[in-house]
Amino acid sequence: MKAVGLTKASTDFIDLEIAQPKPESHDLLVKIKAISINPVDTKQREATKITGDEVRILGWDAVGEVVEIGSEVTLFKTGQEVYFAGDVTRPGAYAEFTLIDERLVGLKPRNLSLEEAAAMPLTTITAWEALFDRLGIVEEDEGKSILIINGAGGVGSIATQLAAHVGLEVIATASRPETIEWTEKFGAQHVLNHREKLTPQLKQLGFEQGVDFILCLHNTNAHWDDMQEAVRPQGEICSIVELAEPVKMSLLKDKSATFSYEFMFTRSKYDTVDKVKQHEILTEAAHMLDGGTLQTTLNKVLSPINAATIEEAHQIISSGKMIGKLVVKGFE
Amino acid sequence: MKAVGLTKASTDFIDLEIAQPKPESHDLLVKIKAISINPVDTKQREATKITGDEVRILGWDAVGEVVEIGSEVTLFKTGQEVYFAGDVTRPGAYAEFTLIDERLVGLKPRNLSLEEAAAMPLTTITAWEALFDRLGIVEEDEGKSILIINGAGGVGSIATQLAAHVGLEVIATASRPETIEWTEKFGAQHVLNHREKLTPQLKQLGFEQGVDFILCLHNTNAHWDDMQEAVRPQGEICSIVELAEPVKMSLLKDKSATFSYEFMFTRSKYDTVDKVKQHEILTEAAHMLDGGTLQTTLNKVLSPINAATIEEAHQIISSGKMIGKLVVKGFE
Repeated sequence: MKAVGLTKASTDFIDLEIAQPKPESHDLLVKIKAISINPVDTKQREATKITGDEVRILGWDAVGEVVEIGSEVTLFKTGQEVYFAGDVTRPGAYAEFTLIDERLVGLKPRNLSLEEAAAMPLTTITAWEALFDRLGIVEEDEGKSILIINGAGGVGSIATQLAAHVGLEVIATASRPETIEWTEKFGAQHVLNHREKLTPQLKQLGFEQGVDFILCLHNTNAHWDDMQEAVRPQGEICSIVELAEPVKMSLLKDKSATFSYEFMFTRSKYDTVDKVKQHEILTEAAHMLDGGTLQTTLNKVLSPINAATIEEAHQIISSGKMIGKLVVKGFE
Repeated sequence: MKAVGLTKASTDFIDLEIAQPKPESHDLLVKIKAISINPVDTKQREATKITGDEVRILGWDAVGEVVEIGSEVTLFKTGQEVYFAGDVTRPGAYAEFTLIDERLVGLKPRNLSLEEAAAMPLTTITAWEALFDRLGIVEEDEGKSILIINGAGGVGSIATQLAAHVGLEVIATASRPETIEWTEKFGAQHVLNHREKLTPQLKQLGFEQGVDFILCLHNTNAHWDDMQEAVRPQGEICSIVELAEPVKMSLLKDKSATFSYEFMFTRSKYDTVDKVKQHEILTEAAHMLDGGTLQTTLNKVLSPINAATIEEAHQIISSGKMIGKLVVKGFE
């Protein structure tokens, strides 16, 4: 089968012909139709150290068709179109076929095109887990406030929609006219400029005691002190970006505040007992996307899936300026 | 009225005669019968900087009788015996009379003596808020595991009981024969030695992936790396002890783990809208103490309440070796 991979020979992506894998146990064999590129792809590329004849296939956000199933599969059958983010410890979706555990997969939203659907799984799972599993937002939190730092990125665009949908007052951050417009379109009621300190801007909006929740989708170290100040007593901060440098935690003590990380590959990497939650999230999200409660965050499509296009996509993601989501569609 | 205070003249406690305060608004005037000494008392003593003629009265854990009420009080009436921890930003309970907001007060457990009841409020609120408000433990968490670091201290003794009561598997830490016996008496199913690394001890007990919850009631910086290792994927750590030094947060990212602080004075200090929760906690805890579901953690009583006894009590607390709770009872 065709694949785009990394080898020992070069740091460039290479068009390869490799053996098609065989599904066992809970795995589906999926024929890939469109993939989406995320910051995790560029991070994994940087972290990849290849020895010997190994080939590394990246890509964890895809739409495709189930063409074969493992012996223990119960949730899907061949012929179904599915969408999924997958498991970063396994070969990814820059390939004609990939293996994916059924518990990490949802049926593709019917009313969305392939590229619209491919844009969604990784960021939807991330935003969903951050809001509902890490920050623990529940129905009774309606009316509370959330600050979403970097509202116009991939995760921000869906987190803004989900937070607005459950009745939170959403304050997103953006710094360019086009990102401000984008995040307002998805439900942000206030937009702050993340190039300036956020706490004074929140006070100006009337959030004197701070906000109930903060979701950080940008350099966490850079925003750390500002977030500690901006969170209200008993409030909660969640970040998807690692605190690479040590941090002072002192300001959070007085407020009995909480900090959590969201990493969407935790469930698959550690094979947690609640791994099937990602199947449930994707299923529920598909209903919401089909019903129009959620909108796709797709903003750019490249084609076809080959080394040159993947390289171009990585350059765009690395710039940090992508608004919404970038999808690469179809093999030649 | 009699009081034991700190003045500009000396760092020693001094027996004083000061004016009796008058209750307004939501305040109760309480005649103090017994008080309990906590680490917060010794920390507040150290942090106290007195200028001019000011007098600082410490003490935030008490039992007494309501003798007068403010005009907006609805929860209590005069003649009732009450127990409370109070508000660290106001004068404390080392005095014949103190003012306390009714929303931070509960009726004294009927079946407990004055000193048995005085031992409970501050540590019960702390343990309760840590387990149920910060770690967010709910009924469905029955059967999950919690590591309580320093199980035999004031908060540890009640946290162990509460955690065991809701059906968690409790692993407490202790290092001396008498503390091991104490923590087992209160419901710890396993006892680890916190003078050695905890993660290998947990693995030996069969907690290969770590524990679901960790409650740190000891030097948080010293246990930081060990706790990051010992918490399971998607697990939660709560501490009541400030991380005074900066910390690396990297290990928590991969696990989507959570860290929270519990500081029992957050609600009163910031006058949060849910401040009355402390009244509710003390009310519920009184029922549990009266019914025998919870046991008092009282372990030592001194008498009477004066400068010399308070000094002795502070020395005992500062040693860090107190098992359970220390109470000082009655004025001369």
